[in-house]
Amino acid sequence: MFVLGVDPGLSRCGYCCVRVSHGQTEAVALGVITTPPGDPVPVRLAELLGEMRALIDECRPEVVAIERVLFQTNVRTAMSVGQASGVIMAEAAHRGIDVVEYSPNQVKEAVAGYGAADKAQVTRMVQTLLRLARPPRPADAADAAAIALCHVAQSSALVGARR
Amino acid sequence: MFVLGVDPGLSRCGYCCVRVSHGQTEAVALGVITTPPGDPVPVRLAELLGEMRALIDECRPEVVAIERVLFQTNVRTAMSVGQASGVIMAEAAHRGIDVVEYSPNQVKEAVAGYGAADKAQVTRMVQTLLRLARPPRPADAADAAAIALCHVAQSSALVGARR
Repeated sequence: MFVLGVDPGLSRCGYCCVRVSHGQTEAVALGVITTPPGDPVPVRLAELLGEMRALIDECRPEVVAIERVLFQTNVRTAMSVGQASGVIMAEAAHRGIDVVEYSPNQVKEAVAGYGAADKAQVTRMVQTLLRLARPPRPADAADAAAIALCHVAQSSALVGARR
Repeated sequence: MFVLGVDPGLSRCGYCCVRVSHGQTEAVALGVITTPPGDPVPVRLAELLGEMRALIDECRPEVVAIERVLFQTNVRTAMSVGQASGVIMAEAAHRGIDVVEYSPNQVKEAVAGYGAADKAQVTRMVQTLLRLARPPRPADAADAAAIALCHVAQSSALVGARR
């Protein structure tokens, strides 16, 4: 099973595609999609859509796990993050891919063991769980990896509960 | 020239496609796309995307004019409106269609002559400008028509200024 984790954003959208096979999880793609802040918003959203389509074509995920957008102090940022997340969720769901949203706290809880974990702890856990030679960079890609791992953990828990 | 006006929303997304020809503007499509509030957000966004694709295929607009999302009192609604607007802007811009955003005040100013116009005044002006037999219904469709007419007015003003 392939799971595509996404940390949505218009300026920086983190992604990480993981393969889960025989209880092993490995990262097959990890990175950040950026769009130029000086371009008009519709053009940037279209660029993000194009990149996301290419990524989905390449990874063919069964599930897209995406961070739920919460309102931050910066309202302008929250809106562009919301628009970016809308584009990604619509594209994935329209292709018949399951889309699951996780809150930042759910992600930290699943990956680091508690919802108040800091970024460094989450990054270290992602590195360990994916057996990466070095800490995943940049931060948005690490966050996307944590979201994918959160989904893997939730799915395993569900499978376990059904047994 | 065809202009597709959109009043974005996830529960109710108003649209109106107008044809501008020899100084005359007429509505060729007017309505509302709705998605079931009980469905998961990604599924609803995908439905909206599918309907919007069909509408763009049918109308083949040169421009999509869309209301700029502002933060309202209801933060939850603002987020879903933002996600819906993101989906529509990305799809249109990705097809090479110009996307122009207008604020609610710009729309009222252009259609009714002043930014503080109420809904009834805007609806009456839309009816007059499009020579409709009766007031456009429902409200979201009327708003979308006003947004399309706002773009037509802005474009005409630009053409006039260039002469």
